[in-house]
Amino acid sequence: MQLRGLSFIGSDSGTPGGATFRAFDPTEGKDLEPVFHSASTAELESAVQMAAAAAPRWARLPGAERNRFLRLIADKLDQNAAVLAAMGVQETGLPLARCTGEVARTSGQLRLYGETAARGDWLDARIETALPERKPLPKPDHRSMLRPFGPVVVFGSSNFPFAYSVAGGDTASAFAAGCPVIVKAHPAHPGTGELVGRLIVDAVKECGLPEGSFSLLFDAGFELGQALVKHPLVKAVGFTGSLKGGRALVDLAAARTEPIPVYAEMGSINPVFILRGALAERAAAIVDGLHASATLNVGQFCTNPGLIVLQRSPAAEQFIRALTAKLAATPEGAMLTAGIRKNFVSNTATRAKQLGVKVIAEAKAVTACGAAPVWFETDAAIFLKNGSLSEEIFGPSSLVVWCHDGAEMLDVARHLEGSLTATVQAGAAEAAGQGELIELLAAKAGRLILNGYPTGLEVSAAIVHGGPYPSTSDGGRSTSVGTRALNRWARLVCYQNFSDELLPAELRKANPLGLLRLVNGEITRNPS
Amino acid sequence: MQLRGLSFIGSDSGTPGGATFRAFDPTEGKDLEPVFHSASTAELESAVQMAAAAAPRWARLPGAERNRFLRLIADKLDQNAAVLAAMGVQETGLPLARCTGEVARTSGQLRLYGETAARGDWLDARIETALPERKPLPKPDHRSMLRPFGPVVVFGSSNFPFAYSVAGGDTASAFAAGCPVIVKAHPAHPGTGELVGRLIVDAVKECGLPEGSFSLLFDAGFELGQALVKHPLVKAVGFTGSLKGGRALVDLAAARTEPIPVYAEMGSINPVFILRGALAERAAAIVDGLHASATLNVGQFCTNPGLIVLQRSPAAEQFIRALTAKLAATPEGAMLTAGIRKNFVSNTATRAKQLGVKVIAEAKAVTACGAAPVWFETDAAIFLKNGSLSEEIFGPSSLVVWCHDGAEMLDVARHLEGSLTATVQAGAAEAAGQGELIELLAAKAGRLILNGYPTGLEVSAAIVHGGPYPSTSDGGRSTSVGTRALNRWARLVCYQNFSDELLPAELRKANPLGLLRLVNGEITRNPS
Repeated sequence: MQLRGLSFIGSDSGTPGGATFRAFDPTEGKDLEPVFHSASTAELESAVQMAAAAAPRWARLPGAERNRFLRLIADKLDQNAAVLAAMGVQETGLPLARCTGEVARTSGQLRLYGETAARGDWLDARIETALPERKPLPKPDHRSMLRPFGPVVVFGSSNFPFAYSVAGGDTASAFAAGCPVIVKAHPAHPGTGELVGRLIVDAVKECGLPEGSFSLLFDAGFELGQALVKHPLVKAVGFTGSLKGGRALVDLAAARTEPIPVYAEMGSINPVFILRGALAERAAAIVDGLHASATLNVGQFCTNPGLIVLQRSPAAEQFIRALTAKLAATPEGAMLTAGIRKNFVSNTATRAKQLGVKVIAEAKAVTACGAAPVWFETDAAIFLKNGSLSEEIFGPSSLVVWCHDGAEMLDVARHLEGSLTATVQAGAAEAAGQGELIELLAAKAGRLILNGYPTGLEVSAAIVHGGPYPSTSDGGRSTSVGTRALNRWARLVCYQNFSDELLPAELRKANPLGLLRLVNGEITRNPS
Repeated sequence: MQLRGLSFIGSDSGTPGGATFRAFDPTEGKDLEPVFHSASTAELESAVQMAAAAAPRWARLPGAERNRFLRLIADKLDQNAAVLAAMGVQETGLPLARCTGEVARTSGQLRLYGETAARGDWLDARIETALPERKPLPKPDHRSMLRPFGPVVVFGSSNFPFAYSVAGGDTASAFAAGCPVIVKAHPAHPGTGELVGRLIVDAVKECGLPEGSFSLLFDAGFELGQALVKHPLVKAVGFTGSLKGGRALVDLAAARTEPIPVYAEMGSINPVFILRGALAERAAAIVDGLHASATLNVGQFCTNPGLIVLQRSPAAEQFIRALTAKLAATPEGAMLTAGIRKNFVSNTATRAKQLGVKVIAEAKAVTACGAAPVWFETDAAIFLKNGSLSEEIFGPSSLVVWCHDGAEMLDVARHLEGSLTATVQAGAAEAAGQGELIELLAAKAGRLILNGYPTGLEVSAAIVHGGPYPSTSDGGRSTSVGTRALNRWARLVCYQNFSDELLPAELRKANPLGLLRLVNGEITRNPS
């Protein structure tokens, strides 16, 4: 597959002109071919108009057909996995095994969300049948369910070139929910984006879906993304990236005449509380597990453990010594982009100068985009006073916070901002006594992990990848991973006293799709 | 029950001082006793701090205990219905039967939401059990559900002194979801608010709940409400009122360091499309039904039918003549407040001057707060060009839009902004052919009504009272009426690899609460 460097406006190619940019190989430290061309304002307008024109057809598209489309994209990803992963490696510096695994995760997500659409239980269909004889007033027939929003804009992430980019979780869940999608490609891996985008364009054609079902826009700067969020025909936005970038889009959307939801997954420090019993029972295993979790793919995960909280003791000090020794010996890796690497260097340099903060591990990095672990320690008293120490440093850097006692650990938990995850490492005998800590952390994070590590995410019906601000923009009401992700792209519609043939199939008396529905208080697949 | 004119800061009385105001009897046109005292900044701070302190206890409070509390409030409302309704009549000018009925609806809501909390199925509990042997990686145990946000602020509405005020739907659903509530009382019916507030304070005591479970704040102006929305410990807001007032709060919440959700139910024009067949079959019945819906309680409903769309024909013109004759003979009624009446007079006067808009019914109103129907007509071509004609006029005023043909009716439907409801009146033979119109309206409203009227709202599991902007602030993702209203006050939390005794009871293996849970893809009440 030859790269063209052009957007997809529906099935049409964008035209050259406007600002250009190139991908960059962070491992080799060199620009890549070809030149990519920013989409023009007219092309953006055309993509949005086509998406809006496709929205009614998408809203009526049966779940089974959405499933067919998503499976087709998944099959195409799998068939092209080798080419895709190779391109991903070149543009992101991530290892081949990671990119190969991520393609598989992406096709798995597409299939899971497709099945969810086909099954249709996520629609929360509810029926209250009429009681025409009720006094003083007859009870009308009410049938309600979730219906798609319309055109969704998805911003590809820098750190997941597949699973959170062009055909990633936001795109897959929006399609599954019945929304046309316009993706703003992340400029750090445009070639990967183009390859994946072409597969989706092909799938749109093969399924006979309207052209406006999908567009992929490139941009050298921020203007196009901002214009997408402000466009009156765009109804919702998905974003994975930095707090600064996400908040800017959230603010733009909130300032619209018609505000729209922006589901932004942003910064997260993912605190890890390590209790005495855990160290007594398995210090060496935790050194290995935490080291792996904190350094995997150069620490470039939204679930990277950025804060380690423990109580000072000889055993804890020995644990941290063993961990920092391992960190200091960790080989450097290429970061995703030169910009991310620059921020990592500058953020760690700033933190090193904070009063009462000490560098405890600093591994060497010598290549252009390379980074290696830089860890810090401080006392809880200082952490509680210095708000900047709660900020995420994206990359292989964490802050160890030393507490005097259990009460101070609880103070640290109370002080935390929102995170995607919070972890507790506890000994067999002490776990049961951590109710207060767990309850505090449940108010601060979307996923609580006992005796595990925050990286590694199961894509399932029960997973939650979302948390209080600033980890997400919607306070953790939704998840960007797992089947509940579909709910983000839909709103409630109720039909009162409708004749059966005018109802969507999902709400008809005979229940032709066999949905699980709440009928007069009972969950059932029976007719109503 | 003697009124004191003071806020409730938990179970404590607020203190006099600061700005004062009085209720006003719109029927008699006179100020009422006693003087009400605005809460001070210190009292607001104390109410919020107490609510935050109560939040962890509320988050752990079993659904059955939330139910007990809500039932107790409901019982107290019913026991005091006569006194409450009389006070409501005096402060709002609404008829006694309406106020009596509204108290009953309010206690009904409290009981329904309490039952919903006790049953617990709304929590969307989901479990994926571990597969320790899975390759390449073991699958962890994940258990997730909705958990309460924490302190919620509720703004009482002017037009529902009971059902959307101190113990109304927002308060009841927030309690049911497990959140402490601070109500900012509507200044138009403070005596009603105080009476209801005292019943809630008593119920808090009798149930042994923490003091911060509930506070009720009075304010002569807007500052206190704004300060509540900006307070860092407040986690969500419910509001029912005008677009201007709702949007101001939405914007304040969006500008916070940590943005929070504001569920604002605002303006709605509730279009009614009347097709030829409906007029041929039952013109006289629709004259009566539409007249009743549009004039009930002086048109002061959020579901008041504000836009009537029909195709010009002799039958349609005769229908409108019959309707306007009935409207012109409609006796005046007192509006809720002098301010609402002033806006009604000014908004109808402005609309009367719009190019191409004609007054077709204007009933006489002579008393100080009185209003009577003022209806307008215009052509679709003018409606489509003049955006101000899409704005709601709160009160007994509607706009008839004449279309040349069915295509122009679809154009009007396409042009509509979001509404809470949209209605289609169709004849027996023509309903089935209205798929395109229904589909267009499904994108514009939260509740679609066939051959009925928009006023009158069933409080149930299937109802939706929410719609695209500007009818609500969240694009219709949620409903402020019905059991789904609880979901607004909760976020998702997932527990990974937790030992059973550390899990909330809702997620434990034995399923001690007997919840409906999604366990490894199956909906079941069985253990996991």
